[in-house]
Amino acid sequence: MAAEPTAHELLRKHRPTLDQALEAIRTRAYWSPHPEHPKAYGEDGSLDAAAGKAAFDALLGNRLDLADQPGVDDWVGGEVSPYGIELGVTYPHPDIDVLLPAMRAGQRAWRDAGPELRAVVCLEILKRISDRTHQFAHAVMHTSGQAFMMAFQAGGPHAQDRALEAVAYAYAEQVRTPEQAEWTKPQGKRDPLVLTKRFTAVPRGIGLVIGCNTFPTWNGFPGLFASLATGNAVLVKPHPRAVLPLALTVRIARDVLAEAGFDPNLVALAAERPGEGIAKTLALRPEIRIIDYTGSTAFGDWLETNAHQAQVYTEKAGVNTVIVHSTDDYQGMLSNLAFSLSLYSGQMCTTPQNLLIPRDGIATDQGHKSFDEVTADLARAVDGLLGDDARANALLGAIVNPDVKARLEAAAGLGEVALASREVTHPDFPDAVVRTPVIVKLDGAKPDDEAAYMSECFGPVSFAVAVDSAADAVELLRRTVREKGAMTVGAYTTDAATEQAVEEACLEEAAQLSLNLTGGVYVNQTAAFSDFHGSGGNPAANAALTDSAFVANRFRMVEVRREA
Amino acid sequence: MAAEPTAHELLRKHRPTLDQALEAIRTRAYWSPHPEHPKAYGEDGSLDAAAGKAAFDALLGNRLDLADQPGVDDWVGGEVSPYGIELGVTYPHPDIDVLLPAMRAGQRAWRDAGPELRAVVCLEILKRISDRTHQFAHAVMHTSGQAFMMAFQAGGPHAQDRALEAVAYAYAEQVRTPEQAEWTKPQGKRDPLVLTKRFTAVPRGIGLVIGCNTFPTWNGFPGLFASLATGNAVLVKPHPRAVLPLALTVRIARDVLAEAGFDPNLVALAAERPGEGIAKTLALRPEIRIIDYTGSTAFGDWLETNAHQAQVYTEKAGVNTVIVHSTDDYQGMLSNLAFSLSLYSGQMCTTPQNLLIPRDGIATDQGHKSFDEVTADLARAVDGLLGDDARANALLGAIVNPDVKARLEAAAGLGEVALASREVTHPDFPDAVVRTPVIVKLDGAKPDDEAAYMSECFGPVSFAVAVDSAADAVELLRRTVREKGAMTVGAYTTDAATEQAVEEACLEEAAQLSLNLTGGVYVNQTAAFSDFHGSGGNPAANAALTDSAFVANRFRMVEVRREA
Repeated sequence: MAAEPTAHELLRKHRPTLDQALEAIRTRAYWSPHPEHPKAYGEDGSLDAAAGKAAFDALLGNRLDLADQPGVDDWVGGEVSPYGIELGVTYPHPDIDVLLPAMRAGQRAWRDAGPELRAVVCLEILKRISDRTHQFAHAVMHTSGQAFMMAFQAGGPHAQDRALEAVAYAYAEQVRTPEQAEWTKPQGKRDPLVLTKRFTAVPRGIGLVIGCNTFPTWNGFPGLFASLATGNAVLVKPHPRAVLPLALTVRIARDVLAEAGFDPNLVALAAERPGEGIAKTLALRPEIRIIDYTGSTAFGDWLETNAHQAQVYTEKAGVNTVIVHSTDDYQGMLSNLAFSLSLYSGQMCTTPQNLLIPRDGIATDQGHKSFDEVTADLARAVDGLLGDDARANALLGAIVNPDVKARLEAAAGLGEVALASREVTHPDFPDAVVRTPVIVKLDGAKPDDEAAYMSECFGPVSFAVAVDSAADAVELLRRTVREKGAMTVGAYTTDAATEQAVEEACLEEAAQLSLNLTGGVYVNQTAAFSDFHGSGGNPAANAALTDSAFVANRFRMVEVRREA
Repeated sequence: MAAEPTAHELLRKHRPTLDQALEAIRTRAYWSPHPEHPKAYGEDGSLDAAAGKAAFDALLGNRLDLADQPGVDDWVGGEVSPYGIELGVTYPHPDIDVLLPAMRAGQRAWRDAGPELRAVVCLEILKRISDRTHQFAHAVMHTSGQAFMMAFQAGGPHAQDRALEAVAYAYAEQVRTPEQAEWTKPQGKRDPLVLTKRFTAVPRGIGLVIGCNTFPTWNGFPGLFASLATGNAVLVKPHPRAVLPLALTVRIARDVLAEAGFDPNLVALAAERPGEGIAKTLALRPEIRIIDYTGSTAFGDWLETNAHQAQVYTEKAGVNTVIVHSTDDYQGMLSNLAFSLSLYSGQMCTTPQNLLIPRDGIATDQGHKSFDEVTADLARAVDGLLGDDARANALLGAIVNPDVKARLEAAAGLGEVALASREVTHPDFPDAVVRTPVIVKLDGAKPDDEAAYMSECFGPVSFAVAVDSAADAVELLRRTVREKGAMTVGAYTTDAATEQAVEEACLEEAAQLSLNLTGGVYVNQTAAFSDFHGSGGNPAANAALTDSAFVANRFRMVEVRREA
């Protein structure tokens, strides 16, 4: 078979990286093969900053051709960057009755390739993506509205890390069962019973990845690579406002698959017409056996309730809480929180929303601080962080869509404003909507306020919620996670009993907890190979990135046994 | 804490067995710590045959008390053995509004015990069950109708093996993530970022095990032990006709938990009044987060569709096929098939139903055999196997319930009878309904016959289905698995191309295949630690016994991170 020499080469090239990834998910120590620094790119075939920018510019206003993806019945696309420019890129629109059957044609060879070859083919796809990190950075920036540096890191190396992590878990899971076993059962004085058994990891069918607007690669890659590495074909349905990064991904995947001797239709793109709602149609097709979704709770719940033919992995919305009880590093706490609230204008599923602060104030290394002092100091910290427009732009990015802007504007009416949002002008993109976060004071004891703080207000909106006590805060945390879900929980406390109570609430409600962060790690950031993103155990998400539950049901193990 | 010395002792006693089980699921070679021979019991605290029988007899006509299981509002029970005797055992009926909250009280300590201690507590429960294997054998026999030897082996050591296998998978899965990690991320010339991370496996809540009539322990244990070993409480809802084996199990589990210092209410029984349908009520309770079910497709589908708050693992019904294409051991094939059709009167979810035989006959080591010759020879083989009543009783057991008897009686009207069922008298139990299997000839090309062979006819009914060719057989196999599901597939062929086609069909439709079995292993038997029972990839079951997908989502991993 023609792929043999390539297979050998891919194994030689990527097996060491796979082994390092396997070791990293065992130890959960820090590791990444994907550099975070823009200047690290430009050698060994990777695009440097200028080449990446040029490669991005070359896409604008053109068709993004996916070579011979079957069943193209139209060209669609209408992405407008949150920074104001029209991308003008069009993508093939699929006739799914042609595309889905075509995607199954290559599945047998992909299955027969086995877990190891599939893994290194996935790593080759990731290598090509990594080489184009600068190009992806612009594509992510101009679809998500992330500032360039964040688009570069979160959309590039961090997303690639999450993809590699998924490949490692998928590989490990498939090789837990040996390919073959001899089974010899003693029968006393008679001859033993002897069977030869062969075990094959078989795919479920076609995986559907439904991408999101804010993190098209970071949230899209894990499902894509987990399904592909376990032998499935993968159909990628990007968010209509963030097609480009995933279309580039699909193009690279198709190229690598074809070069390695596999059918490029194992990965395909489903771009859609405005308002078409193709995800709903695809999600119920019998060929679709796995769905990975990031987005609204409403559609996530709909998928979980209706797509019975598929394994459904969702990341939906939650209400993230930080308990501010006490600290021995008041300035560190304020700086850390200010950064968390500001990063990407709070448009992360992990951004804190509710800051629960005792109404009698908190103990700090700078003495007792009243509720109003804490909120005022936090407002000042955010102001200080974002006082300089250049720095503000570099941190905030742009508001991703008009819904977020509308929520931000409405938030000021929900209570007393501790920090007002302000407009920031972007020097390069005058049409970009850039806004600093708003902080609104609410009272945890007031039923009217509860409607606000118990709903997700996605965007740069936080609520400083006055609570009666540490116990009251923990109880509200617990109720929030149970009823609304949470991707993250944070807490600041110097009190051992409070710390233990918060930990216990997080263990019981299955929420990921960051304690007393005052330095350069933020509650809204998780690192692949070490941190779990979401828990899969509260309403915010039914899966975690990444554990073996995320991969183990994407394939099945089929046994063929015969007498030896 | 009082449990400390016990914990140490349990670890010393059971850790070696756990390690052997972990090794067995890695190699999938033959292994079992549970003896199959009745005479192996009677030492080291286990009950011998006489003591086991006496212990069973002592249960009859009495209340089976579960010490202090909370919320008992009634005593219920009406089991009648398929062998004709009324068991007269009554069980506590739960007020679930009292019982369910009580089951949560001990969850924190059980969670904090950690994966290893939980595993060895589970192994101690299994040791106590193993010691009572003779007692369980009678309990299984007189609820399922299995013959004594089968009730002993399948209901005893084989069920215990499946339980241990589930514990091993659960343990392995939980310890894949370390308890703690140091994460140090370099920051160029600045100080590195350093975090300490603690990872805790947390349970989902309460697991509900819905038992079946035919294999109360074999099918009930995996879910019970998988949920318990991953930190959940477990509520066992047995089939109303097969309460006793699982009630004994619950009693032993409660005793061991209490002795080890845990809350006995971590395992509880939900017996029901006739026609109460308590499973449906329980399945939708918010406290129930995991459901393990074995039984009809209708209720399994209902659970999958409606119990959204729970992880649902189902084993439902399927239509098992054996392709009889050619053989170089005609007598071996006939003997093997005759045994498979006869064992437990075909009342196994793994028993072959449709024997697909080319209408032009098959090639054998004894020359060409026509379709009619094959069916006649198979009928003779079954007759020979069951000709002696003592042997027939030892193999067939009793018909488990009137529905099976009715189906058997109706089957003779579906086509030409190749082998008629006959009544067998049981020397010890004159009221037992014992029947030999019926084999009915059908034509795969006749639409009228399709209604019969494309439906599950659970019980001692097989169809010899005439097909046009090997290719026709494979196509029908494929369609049957896809539309109806299959727990097992068998095939006899000496033709490499046919063998490959059958294998490919099984890989594509995710069915477990046994090839050319002519000796002492049968298509309807699977061995723990080596064979997968079901695949979880076709409509017969959404899970396999046992793989990591069966355990990985019964717990979640919660991370607490802080600056080092």
